[in-house]
Amino acid sequence: MIFYDCATAPSPRRARMFIAEKGLEPERRDISIAQNQQLAPEFLAVNPQGTLPVLVTQKGLVLTENLAIAAYLEAIHPDPPLMGESATEKAEILQWSAICETRGGAPIAEVLRNSHPAMKGRALPGPQDVEQIPQLAERGRTRVTAFFDLLEQRLADRRYLGGARFSLADITGFVFVDFARVIRTRIPEKNTATSDWYDRIAARPSAAL
Amino acid sequence: MIFYDCATAPSPRRARMFIAEKGLEPERRDISIAQNQQLAPEFLAVNPQGTLPVLVTQKGLVLTENLAIAAYLEAIHPDPPLMGESATEKAEILQWSAICETRGGAPIAEVLRNSHPAMKGRALPGPQDVEQIPQLAERGRTRVTAFFDLLEQRLADRRYLGGARFSLADITGFVFVDFARVIRTRIPEKNTATSDWYDRIAARPSAAL
Repeated sequence: MIFYDCATAPSPRRARMFIAEKGLEPERRDISIAQNQQLAPEFLAVNPQGTLPVLVTQKGLVLTENLAIAAYLEAIHPDPPLMGESATEKAEILQWSAICETRGGAPIAEVLRNSHPAMKGRALPGPQDVEQIPQLAERGRTRVTAFFDLLEQRLADRRYLGGARFSLADITGFVFVDFARVIRTRIPEKNTATSDWYDRIAARPSAAL
Repeated sequence: MIFYDCATAPSPRRARMFIAEKGLEPERRDISIAQNQQLAPEFLAVNPQGTLPVLVTQKGLVLTENLAIAAYLEAIHPDPPLMGESATEKAEILQWSAICETRGGAPIAEVLRNSHPAMKGRALPGPQDVEQIPQLAERGRTRVTAFFDLLEQRLADRRYLGGARFSLADITGFVFVDFARVIRTRIPEKNTATSDWYDRIAARPSAAL
């Protein structure tokens, strides 16, 4: 397997954490988004969409979506289970991974890409030029606030987002909560359940990679 | 089980098709988005986010995300498999379902919600008021065009989006391709592989519900 990673971006970090939690060590190639290597012909030959992460399996299957990478690795290396074993667990884990993506990751990226000077003309990932929309950055900030409220409610009476044990949902949530620093947003001080959860995930070796 | 559905919206249609393909008949309650019933106190008591679909399981688990509903039903009713059996199949199905969501469904909704007169002040789903951003509608149109190209490439040499057999990925793709009519976009005439695939899915009884 070859894992195309980027040390500075949240999406590849999700896959990197998942791979580490599975105890796997595929060949790793770092693609620098800062240097626009994701748009170089060599990388576009692997993934024409120019996005990261990418996992190329031993059979040459090219996986470009975090959920696909997770599902593949869960199937070939079931231990430790990170996507649940019972029907309830499987559903809750995908549910909270999806919520963290659409209500957390998406608006944070929206704020960053539509407001940061370095992202001028790069308001969407991939090879095309896309102008920033400042109004969209504003809308995104409101959504990020709502996301932090939602997390706090969810974590008030459980240790992990998916339920009793650590899972893919925590990886997704943790990576996006951490990523919120790029728009100068942190866990609100009053959200103590979220802070405790965050510290618990941050202490895992996979979070330090 | 209780399935909260809405006959006119694409997200609940995905769950409705999945349920029908599994041959299940949960108690169904139709929530009219046209009449704003998704924001009525009775429904917000079920799902405070005010979004559809919702599946409430026999044990009272509230599932509000399509992938969670699918994963739950796949686990308790494995036949027919709609989320794959081999590692490769599982990965390809989640991959193409994710691609259809983020590169198809999301921009189509973006165009509709930020341009349609009926969506004024309702540019995001849920209880909050959100103003339209016309520039976002424009950006969305470009992304929808790219999505149709991507589908055509994918379907050029395979019968279904996930591979050799019908799956969740086809449901996601079909529902969003169909939904594109709300922004007056159809499968381009030259995209014959996509048209053939579309006709194949449209002929399934689940597509008529």
